[in-house]
Amino acid sequence: MLSKSQISFLKSLQQKKIRKTHGVFLAEGIKSITEFIYSDYKVETLYHTPSFVPKLPNLSQKINFEQTSATDLAKFSSLTTPQEVIALIKIPQWPALLTQNLQQGFSIVLDGIQDPGNLGTIIRTADWFGIKNIICSEDTVDVYNPKVVQATMGSLSRIRVHYTDLNDLLKTTQLPIFGALLNGQNIYNTNFGSHGLIIMGNEGNGIRPEIAALIQQPVTIPLLGKAESLNVAIATAIFCSEVSRGQYVNKTI
Amino acid sequence: MLSKSQISFLKSLQQKKIRKTHGVFLAEGIKSITEFIYSDYKVETLYHTPSFVPKLPNLSQKINFEQTSATDLAKFSSLTTPQEVIALIKIPQWPALLTQNLQQGFSIVLDGIQDPGNLGTIIRTADWFGIKNIICSEDTVDVYNPKVVQATMGSLSRIRVHYTDLNDLLKTTQLPIFGALLNGQNIYNTNFGSHGLIIMGNEGNGIRPEIAALIQQPVTIPLLGKAESLNVAIATAIFCSEVSRGQYVNKTI
Repeated sequence: MLSKSQISFLKSLQQKKIRKTHGVFLAEGIKSITEFIYSDYKVETLYHTPSFVPKLPNLSQKINFEQTSATDLAKFSSLTTPQEVIALIKIPQWPALLTQNLQQGFSIVLDGIQDPGNLGTIIRTADWFGIKNIICSEDTVDVYNPKVVQATMGSLSRIRVHYTDLNDLLKTTQLPIFGALLNGQNIYNTNFGSHGLIIMGNEGNGIRPEIAALIQQPVTIPLLGKAESLNVAIATAIFCSEVSRGQYVNKTI
Repeated sequence: MLSKSQISFLKSLQQKKIRKTHGVFLAEGIKSITEFIYSDYKVETLYHTPSFVPKLPNLSQKINFEQTSATDLAKFSSLTTPQEVIALIKIPQWPALLTQNLQQGFSIVLDGIQDPGNLGTIIRTADWFGIKNIICSEDTVDVYNPKVVQATMGSLSRIRVHYTDLNDLLKTTQLPIFGALLNGQNIYNTNFGSHGLIIMGNEGNGIRPEIAALIQQPVTIPLLGKAESLNVAIATAIFCSEVSRGQYVNKTI
């Protein structure tokens, strides 16, 4: 049984600064959690209801199992309808981001994304299209925010999300820099080549001017209808689809 | 000043059956509301805070303006941070859906979409790609749900969303029927032609078997990475992008 202070601590992990101080975050639902368990992440504790029977063969890591009443679980769940299991997972320290490690394929660069659902959906979409790295400006929403973790549907376990000063990154990289801007080249006529960075901007304001200035190839999804803008996760997906298109055309499903 | 019972009525419009009984819904924020005002929709009343100064030139319809305290407005807003203005809008009665009116371009068919954010984003995306009609199964989330209206960012004012029995529609239409299914043809090799219906399925279960059986051309977005699935709004956007691609390639931005 969990003590009041344990529950209170677990609940406080909804806050970024508490997650940062303790180096842990929560993931909910056995499907997502299983993907974290069989990944490079270290799952420390699995809080589960009495009725939940964990089936986790070939565990290479030691996990603490902590039986918890559904009522207690609900107290630190971030879901309206909590699931039967919540995992406490260590925040990994990835090796420093070296742009020479980004030479293969494309990476997505996010400048100031604020909505957790958007970041989560972008991670899930990247994982579909085989994109392995996402690089975020330091003011982008925290990837271990429970709503982001939830929206990735387990894909967070496979995608490396880095936070860095985009100015420094873009000024020093040798990679081709594409960016989603208005009045750029038509995306459907753009030759993306085989690798590069694709910059996507904040929901309301787009890419910051100082970052936009470093884009070598501004690219636009042309407007056929009348919407004022596209959701950033949707626009990112269309970029992912276009840069991967060449590899896909002859792929047998 | 609004009476308690007026506020209570406006608040009750978060429920589908109340909206249906009274034939009205709410939209929030002047940007979205302005798009409804200059559309085929009939805006009945505009509830606004004292500090809000409406600038609405060339009004062809009569709108009631009702000054409301910010506190009262918050009581029937569905937003965490309410905006200065909420409009009461009449639910339109579109002419009956005739598939001969769908001969131009593509229409999106949604089989049991449940998440309001997904439906809203699909409407906004359709509006970007010049798709004018969305046809929903009767159990798809209601388009006048406040979260759907919000997520469309004004695009709902331009897109016609119909609810109908998809079985009847698909059995009688002469239009080509494409659908997002696993093990279909690679989307990047599919010739969509110039018009047709594109069926997208429910978030968890995909397209119902009896509807899937009516698909003439199953189409798949191939998987390069490891995600288990794509969000349905993301998948819809990639279909929109692909079917419009031909028209776009030579478009000057």
